[in-house]
Amino acid sequence: MEFFELLKRRRSVRKYKSEKIPAEVLEKIYEAIRWSPSAGNLQAYEVFLVEDRQRLSQLARAAFGQDFIAEAAVALVFCADPDQAASRYGARGRNLYALQDATIACTFAHLAAAALGLGSVWIGAFDDAAVWQAIGSPKGLKPVAILPLGYPAENPPPTPRRHWKEFVHPVE
Amino acid sequence: MEFFELLKRRRSVRKYKSEKIPAEVLEKIYEAIRWSPSAGNLQAYEVFLVEDRQRLSQLARAAFGQDFIAEAAVALVFCADPDQAASRYGARGRNLYALQDATIACTFAHLAAAALGLGSVWIGAFDDAAVWQAIGSPKGLKPVAILPLGYPAENPPPTPRRHWKEFVHPVE
Repeated sequence: MEFFELLKRRRSVRKYKSEKIPAEVLEKIYEAIRWSPSAGNLQAYEVFLVEDRQRLSQLARAAFGQDFIAEAAVALVFCADPDQAASRYGARGRNLYALQDATIACTFAHLAAAALGLGSVWIGAFDDAAVWQAIGSPKGLKPVAILPLGYPAENPPPTPRRHWKEFVHPVE
Repeated sequence: MEFFELLKRRRSVRKYKSEKIPAEVLEKIYEAIRWSPSAGNLQAYEVFLVEDRQRLSQLARAAFGQDFIAEAAVALVFCADPDQAASRYGARGRNLYALQDATIACTFAHLAAAALGLGSVWIGAFDDAAVWQAIGSPKGLKPVAILPLGYPAENPPPTPRRHWKEFVHPVE
């Protein structure tokens, strides 16, 4: 799909069909993530694929009862790897770059999902420790986003936005 | 440009032609930013447009001598608005969502630039206070990325990446 068209069509989708996502479609999303830029190309992120129904329910509870997560075909959990970024960049790597790397990776996945006709929504509200446990307590990693994925069973209208003149500020 | 093609063509470009960027091209980037998702649609980010040569040099110095910033046609500085995100989401808004909102916005701009034939590179290494001063000391805002923009005068090869099997972890 053409990029600017994609940006306008992307929605936050919270209702999914029961249809499974073919492995080759998921791989296209992983391939998109792969090309995301990262600080010093350290790729200080890891992605956890949750398919098991019980694990998805566990994520939904960890996200304070966002039950639609349990109805998704799969969910991707994006983790920052602060130690990886800190290994070259110290505190700034730990506190900023790792978080940005994982956030950019999730942005690429969210857009790729929309380009492939999938629905997804960025979940940021969750109990970090509970999500971390749901994905197997990976040492040193910090979950920063959950992205449930499925074929969309809703097509919500676009949400309103500021005009760009409200957020772009020319510096004198 | 087709989305997956765009992801593969995107590069980190640090050499720019002296050519200016037409206003309508910059507006397409702003429009792309506008459609970026944000926590609760609070859009807790602001963007500063730097065109002045002296200000661009000031940014280059604030970025520890990344002198190519001074050669860009313009630079966009993406700021998180922690107070805006905290107004609804408290500490999590302040510490996570505002930063993510600004990071997603910068990702959209970086991709939009590539789709429009512009070169840009994500700059994360800078002295926060010095960048903040260069953009006019906007109250309460925190710079999280600088994106210099210009018509590319280099076409660097793709940098290596992990195979997706190295960063995607199926959860049992």
